[in-house]
Amino acid sequence: MSTESDCPFCGIVAGTIPSTKVYEDDKTFAFMDIAPASDGHLLVVPKAHAKNLLEIPAEDLAAVAQTGQRLAQRIMATLDADGVNLINSCGEAAWQTVFHFHLHVIPRYAGRDGLTLPWVPTPGDADAIAATGARLASD
Amino acid sequence: MSTESDCPFCGIVAGTIPSTKVYEDDKTFAFMDIAPASDGHLLVVPKAHAKNLLEIPAEDLAAVAQTGQRLAQRIMATLDADGVNLINSCGEAAWQTVFHFHLHVIPRYAGRDGLTLPWVPTPGDADAIAATGARLASD
Repeated sequence: MSTESDCPFCGIVAGTIPSTKVYEDDKTFAFMDIAPASDGHLLVVPKAHAKNLLEIPAEDLAAVAQTGQRLAQRIMATLDADGVNLINSCGEAAWQTVFHFHLHVIPRYAGRDGLTLPWVPTPGDADAIAATGARLASD
Repeated sequence: MSTESDCPFCGIVAGTIPSTKVYEDDKTFAFMDIAPASDGHLLVVPKAHAKNLLEIPAEDLAAVAQTGQRLAQRIMATLDADGVNLINSCGEAAWQTVFHFHLHVIPRYAGRDGLTLPWVPTPGDADAIAATGARLASD
């Protein structure tokens, strides 16, 4: 498994940096975003380090997309969301800030959110994030 | 191949509705967005009709993601873009307006765009869109 010692998402996958894990399989790892754009916002990453969309191996990209779909289905069933956005940012010019490929899975709530992008990442309520993560992980 | 007679993207895949095609393979079809958020904005769809992220078969989702990656690489090489966003909208609450799964591939240009989302779809210049599409298709 390719890892980079100074990559925060490699640290999360390895468990040396704490996260609220939602899902894990052979190729992918999903955890709650600590600065959520909406309730339930999570990230899916490949376990093997890849900088961005241009560099991720095609099979890892497929696995990340499929984990994103699985978690979108959970979000709809568990959080009573009305929709979901998947977003990937490739390059600083596209709002990428952590250079380990990640797919945002962002629940949407009709009449209850007014998401505009880019959202300004603001630390969320840690307890609320952990509680939502636990609901998604156990479903 | 599953199609729906009143679905505009099924019509584009079948060729009964015109589009500027950029790429096609067994499972996927890519064409220029006619109301682009930036120069080079294109859409990747599965050829088989699927309403949204919740319903698309996993293998078609993987194929769409991989086509999106291939075209992002082309965009970076051909259009001198500085980054790319991939976006999927699932459900009206998440800005979905055409109910055939589609992945937006949106080039980003440092200092030359100020993309905020949701963009307000505004018909672009048809000749410019066709010219950019031709550059992407032939690369």
